[in-house]
Amino acid sequence: MTSSQISLSASVIRTDLPMSDGRTIRYYDSEKQSRSAKDLRPVEVQPGIGELRLDPLVNEWVAMAAHRQGRIFLPPKELCPLCPSSVDLLTEIPDSNYEVVVFDNRSPSLRPPDSNFQIPNELNFDTPIVPAAGKCEVVCYAADHGKSFKDLSVKQIRTVMEAWRNRVKELSSEDFIAHIFPFENRGEEVGVTLSHPHGQIYAYSYLTPRVEKMLAVAQAHKTRTGRVLLDDVIAREIKDEVRIVTQNADWIAYVPYASRYPFEIHLAPVKSVSDMAELSDSQADSFSIISQEVFRRLDGVFGIEMAYIAAWHQAPVRVGRNVLKLHLQICSVRRQPNKLKYLAGSESAMGAFIMDMKPEQSAQQLREVKL
Amino acid sequence: MTSSQISLSASVIRTDLPMSDGRTIRYYDSEKQSRSAKDLRPVEVQPGIGELRLDPLVNEWVAMAAHRQGRIFLPPKELCPLCPSSVDLLTEIPDSNYEVVVFDNRSPSLRPPDSNFQIPNELNFDTPIVPAAGKCEVVCYAADHGKSFKDLSVKQIRTVMEAWRNRVKELSSEDFIAHIFPFENRGEEVGVTLSHPHGQIYAYSYLTPRVEKMLAVAQAHKTRTGRVLLDDVIAREIKDEVRIVTQNADWIAYVPYASRYPFEIHLAPVKSVSDMAELSDSQADSFSIISQEVFRRLDGVFGIEMAYIAAWHQAPVRVGRNVLKLHLQICSVRRQPNKLKYLAGSESAMGAFIMDMKPEQSAQQLREVKL
Repeated sequence: MTSSQISLSASVIRTDLPMSDGRTIRYYDSEKQSRSAKDLRPVEVQPGIGELRLDPLVNEWVAMAAHRQGRIFLPPKELCPLCPSSVDLLTEIPDSNYEVVVFDNRSPSLRPPDSNFQIPNELNFDTPIVPAAGKCEVVCYAADHGKSFKDLSVKQIRTVMEAWRNRVKELSSEDFIAHIFPFENRGEEVGVTLSHPHGQIYAYSYLTPRVEKMLAVAQAHKTRTGRVLLDDVIAREIKDEVRIVTQNADWIAYVPYASRYPFEIHLAPVKSVSDMAELSDSQADSFSIISQEVFRRLDGVFGIEMAYIAAWHQAPVRVGRNVLKLHLQICSVRRQPNKLKYLAGSESAMGAFIMDMKPEQSAQQLREVKL
Repeated sequence: MTSSQISLSASVIRTDLPMSDGRTIRYYDSEKQSRSAKDLRPVEVQPGIGELRLDPLVNEWVAMAAHRQGRIFLPPKELCPLCPSSVDLLTEIPDSNYEVVVFDNRSPSLRPPDSNFQIPNELNFDTPIVPAAGKCEVVCYAADHGKSFKDLSVKQIRTVMEAWRNRVKELSSEDFIAHIFPFENRGEEVGVTLSHPHGQIYAYSYLTPRVEKMLAVAQAHKTRTGRVLLDDVIAREIKDEVRIVTQNADWIAYVPYASRYPFEIHLAPVKSVSDMAELSDSQADSFSIISQEVFRRLDGVFGIEMAYIAAWHQAPVRVGRNVLKLHLQICSVRRQPNKLKYLAGSESAMGAFIMDMKPEQSAQQLREVKL
């Protein structure tokens, strides 16, 4: 493979280059750049694809990726594999600078399968093991190791959004992909192994348990009322008002009525869309503004960096596109400056969440943060 | 209320005494004791009942217990509220010694409701808030602060089992209770706030999300095959053999085929029963022996105390009793001596578990522990 370039919205240009082990790195640039840096690292043998095993007690797939144990764990800043390459260190990014890059995870949980891959139709106790098909990508938000999503400029966030939209669109065209999940884990408290500002994209070959449930519930709501569930959720949040954190013409940020974490924020387009690829340019532009504010408010509550999981929920690639709609769910596990919420017995083993704090209270704390 | 005494299996005697704030403490003794110690602490006003709010995106209840923020957090040993009372400290246990005690949690997430309580039949977007009905109890396994479940003698475990069976039986008779969940969180890594050896019982007024799913899957299996799902699961584990950790005449301990945690062990009766109250005396006796071995093997893997959640799954009180069967699920979040497994984006937001280790491998490590 040689270099290829395409133009996207917001004047973003994507340049693809091969990595030494056969993976692809995609540079997303808002400023004109000529990208040609070669990956000078030795070729590395890729391990095989993992297994999907069905948990018979709940009919859910568990992905077994036995090769990932040795992955790099909180390296010192000077050995960060997500910084640009330098004369001292060859990293995952061959160039000496970048704005936003997306590349395949070096030790992915899910890998592209052989061409004859298929998820069995009937899931039950007798379902055999199938390959752990899918894709895992890394999205680096900025070259600056010390930054966090909230420190990005509005323009930088807009470039990240353009990369997300582009990846969702392209991954949606793969036969073996059923659902696309862009997300960010932030903070050692949620197991982050690399502190460089980055997110990930998991593209699953199956509908995950949460997506299956959301789909069933949204379909039932549509059948019962004729309406889109997320539209009704947002209408209630607007009507109740007390849980709104902030809003602009295109987006609304609220602590949901039945939140599960001390600081949980949902950020949704006021005019619902199925996935990121369907966002209008105006919605993409205004996301950059409101998301910067929301993440700054979150860190402002206690004046410390909050550990969080930021999860993009969208419609699956091929089903439920008229009932499941895009929103970003941000969950922080911190409930006080020195206390975390743990998912212990009730949450882990029963799926029954217990909240120590009302959503109305955390919404107020988030609103009161001085920016 | 004054003292009352009843005799149980295995020569265990239960003595009930009132606590100063109206709660009840139940002493379970295998040696004859006369229990009459008074709770000398001042009366404390009990906060009201919390709220159950329906999360409309997945139709799941979330319990809001806004008053629990201030609860005691890893107190030093000399201030432990689960040690027997002494001249220096009045604790939750008025007596100066005990074997096993069970009492109502001082700041419960769930509380007994008014007599007219009912969970709405139809769960959907419009379902109103209902009271967070249920019961939360604390089970102290031993008076010795420094012990852990695995350090208990077989006789002590037998007394704990008798307390569990008795509590399950009694709680099952309450109209407002739908499902009973005895469990233990162990280790600061899973948020344990008191290191004294103890477990808890959550008695929910609703079927929890995991129970609902297990019930639907087990019912479908019964319809399709005529058989009990857990019986077939155990038959496969016996046939495959490689994931068995240990067994005796009444119980089998195995790492399940599609385990979700680096060290997950299921411990099930070979002859299935619906709940703890249905266990025969022989099954209860032999549980004491095998469970001691299993928990010792778990701590033996790395030679350190493993953080774990030990969760008793059983049939709900009123439904599915012919398809859902008793088993203990033990999940440890430690995957290497210095590394934890975190539930990050894929697990938390998608319910999609990724395993770094095959169940066959952890079963072998558990078998190889020298006791």
